[in-house]
Amino acid sequence: MSEVMTLATRAREAAQRLGTTSTEQRNRALLAMAHALTHNQDEIIAANASDVAAARGKNVAESLLDRLELTPARIKSMSEALKSLSMLPDPIGEVVEGHTIPNGIKLTQIRVPLGVVAMIYEARPNVTADAAGLCIKTGNAVILRGGSLAVGSNLALTRVLANAATASGMPEGSIQSIESTEREAAEELMGLHGYIDVLIPRGGAGLIKSVVENAKVPVIETGVGNCHIYIHKDADPDMARRIAVNAKVQRPGVCNAAESLLIDEDIYQAVLPAILKELENAGVMIYADDATRSLGAVMRIEPATEQDWGTEYLDLKMSVKVVSGLDEAIRHINQYGTKHSEAIVTGNYGAAQRFLAEIDAAAVYVNASTRFTDGGEFGLGAEIGISTQKLHARGPMGLAALTSTKFICMGSGQIRE
Amino acid sequence: MSEVMTLATRAREAAQRLGTTSTEQRNRALLAMAHALTHNQDEIIAANASDVAAARGKNVAESLLDRLELTPARIKSMSEALKSLSMLPDPIGEVVEGHTIPNGIKLTQIRVPLGVVAMIYEARPNVTADAAGLCIKTGNAVILRGGSLAVGSNLALTRVLANAATASGMPEGSIQSIESTEREAAEELMGLHGYIDVLIPRGGAGLIKSVVENAKVPVIETGVGNCHIYIHKDADPDMARRIAVNAKVQRPGVCNAAESLLIDEDIYQAVLPAILKELENAGVMIYADDATRSLGAVMRIEPATEQDWGTEYLDLKMSVKVVSGLDEAIRHINQYGTKHSEAIVTGNYGAAQRFLAEIDAAAVYVNASTRFTDGGEFGLGAEIGISTQKLHARGPMGLAALTSTKFICMGSGQIRE
Repeated sequence: MSEVMTLATRAREAAQRLGTTSTEQRNRALLAMAHALTHNQDEIIAANASDVAAARGKNVAESLLDRLELTPARIKSMSEALKSLSMLPDPIGEVVEGHTIPNGIKLTQIRVPLGVVAMIYEARPNVTADAAGLCIKTGNAVILRGGSLAVGSNLALTRVLANAATASGMPEGSIQSIESTEREAAEELMGLHGYIDVLIPRGGAGLIKSVVENAKVPVIETGVGNCHIYIHKDADPDMARRIAVNAKVQRPGVCNAAESLLIDEDIYQAVLPAILKELENAGVMIYADDATRSLGAVMRIEPATEQDWGTEYLDLKMSVKVVSGLDEAIRHINQYGTKHSEAIVTGNYGAAQRFLAEIDAAAVYVNASTRFTDGGEFGLGAEIGISTQKLHARGPMGLAALTSTKFICMGSGQIRE
Repeated sequence: MSEVMTLATRAREAAQRLGTTSTEQRNRALLAMAHALTHNQDEIIAANASDVAAARGKNVAESLLDRLELTPARIKSMSEALKSLSMLPDPIGEVVEGHTIPNGIKLTQIRVPLGVVAMIYEARPNVTADAAGLCIKTGNAVILRGGSLAVGSNLALTRVLANAATASGMPEGSIQSIESTEREAAEELMGLHGYIDVLIPRGGAGLIKSVVENAKVPVIETGVGNCHIYIHKDADPDMARRIAVNAKVQRPGVCNAAESLLIDEDIYQAVLPAILKELENAGVMIYADDATRSLGAVMRIEPATEQDWGTEYLDLKMSVKVVSGLDEAIRHINQYGTKHSEAIVTGNYGAAQRFLAEIDAAAVYVNASTRFTDGGEFGLGAEIGISTQKLHARGPMGLAALTSTKFICMGSGQIRE
């Protein structure tokens, strides 16, 4: 049996038993996992140091190295996150709805674990601890497949977390990482229909696309965000500037950062120059249409190509386009956006209402930065990712996104006539 | 552009406009569709008569011919179903939850249409009208791909329904059927990631499997039901007999009918003969283990093979097995079942609780027939199918299963610090 198949078989068996653990048992396991992380910090950091050294040898970008590296402070923060999880309400067993049907059967729809959750992600070891914690909290078994650069760190983290979980009563096989870094292992995982209840890819557009195209198991697409700020002609110019700049520069490498700025032609000559200057001062490179470029407001500006409108830069880069008005803005966003987070800045009630109704995205904003699309900011308590698909979960996914439901039907001999 | 791509492009445009129609407009369209069906009955029946004649020429089974054939009474019932839909509450716009986040942004999660729904189904023209109605009710565009035997009927129905919908204000392209009966057309549809928000296959296990293996768009698996009745040692023998017989024979061709009977070894000699006799009298062929066969209770009995335990007969056939007790019954059902509907008959509280907790299925019953797993019986008002997967919807799917959600965020200039 292949490694992936062995893990999947064990995960299925674990899921069956995890489904009957109590809230108390699972919370106790989370606390044990939190403790184990700090207690075994040296082992984890040693494994991570080898990963980092190997990555440096491969000339990996500094930003990636930064995400890869584990420090005592980062391990502490992973540990604290597990403790916080243990204090959140348990969604499992929650009664979603219920009633007695006319023949007397008592029907109750309750939340149950999904079963086996698989995650494919890039070289961010913190996802390993987060995902393991979220899955234990919701009674799911998890199979993790992190990026090859972080494989030593992930295996060390998994060993520590799985041992702690098992020692506190969770079944063997609840938390597992795939050791093989071969592409074939990931592909085998994507094909395990009947073993994996959901596969969540987290990472860049290429990873997500590969999973969507190859998976035979149910997938939740996450995270790709080509987000827009649209400045309507009735916008407050100062608010528009603050929101556009914040959405782009406050943290440019994340999915809810803005990538594109649209502005109405009625006001662009008056309003846009100050925004462009502030973006330039923050180090942003602008890719713009002819109207914007003809303003001559900044030096760091290039002509936008068709490709720019559809690009998630994840960097200090922004595309800028002057539009004829609300209709064109809505059309442009629905055409080039990735249905993640979209914002209008306006003082006009009707324009706000139309934007909210007609933009097809997980989160639609009036007069606020797109940077708030986040499980923490939205008050979900924890987040396994941000869904950009419409099925099962949309937008920031909290604990409930890791559950399914089951109808409990209690009868007294009813048969169908 | 291929036929499927043309339809999908039109459907996307229609979906964008359908998302902003009012409840009143959509209900008016449903009533117009209901009226159009009876008004154009002759045209529909003529097209259907050609399909039926062609199917007869191909020596198709009588049961299939019966499902294919449309009569004035059946058209009337399709029309009545559309009228009933118009009277159900509209899920679109419903506020699922909402609160003000600490920085003052007013967050509201509302129900929105999925967008473009695709259905692939077999030769049952009534699904055409049902699916079109459910999708219009929920503001979704629909692309239908029925079985090749019913293609004339489906195209006639689609023409009539789409014309009525358009005449009452729904956008062109809201309701469309694929004309091509080539397998390639179905495969193209399954691959249209970014155009189709969900694909729902309805039909036999082969159809469902092919969709799950080939689709790159999100899928909801439906309907395959290898359902069990488990008679625990503390069951009331008379209730056990009534439930087992009802679940098998009341309508053997449907997914919530029972296919397999398990009974505890402590009671099988006393309880099973009467059940087997009643099943035989109802025309049921039994496939059983040695213990059951050694009872000598009936003539129509054959040895069960390993394959029988996993077979959905959809016919007057049932597999029967004696088990050592609750543990073996739960293990057997979780191994061979299709996670649809499973029932225990028992007077024992603890056994009932364990069965409800440990059986992994969309609907789990104590002391009732599995035949109740149905949108109508469960009080959902309408049903687009019965999901046997865990993502998005599980069990009978009503109108809410055809919706997604969207976060509406109303701010007053908030930026992220």
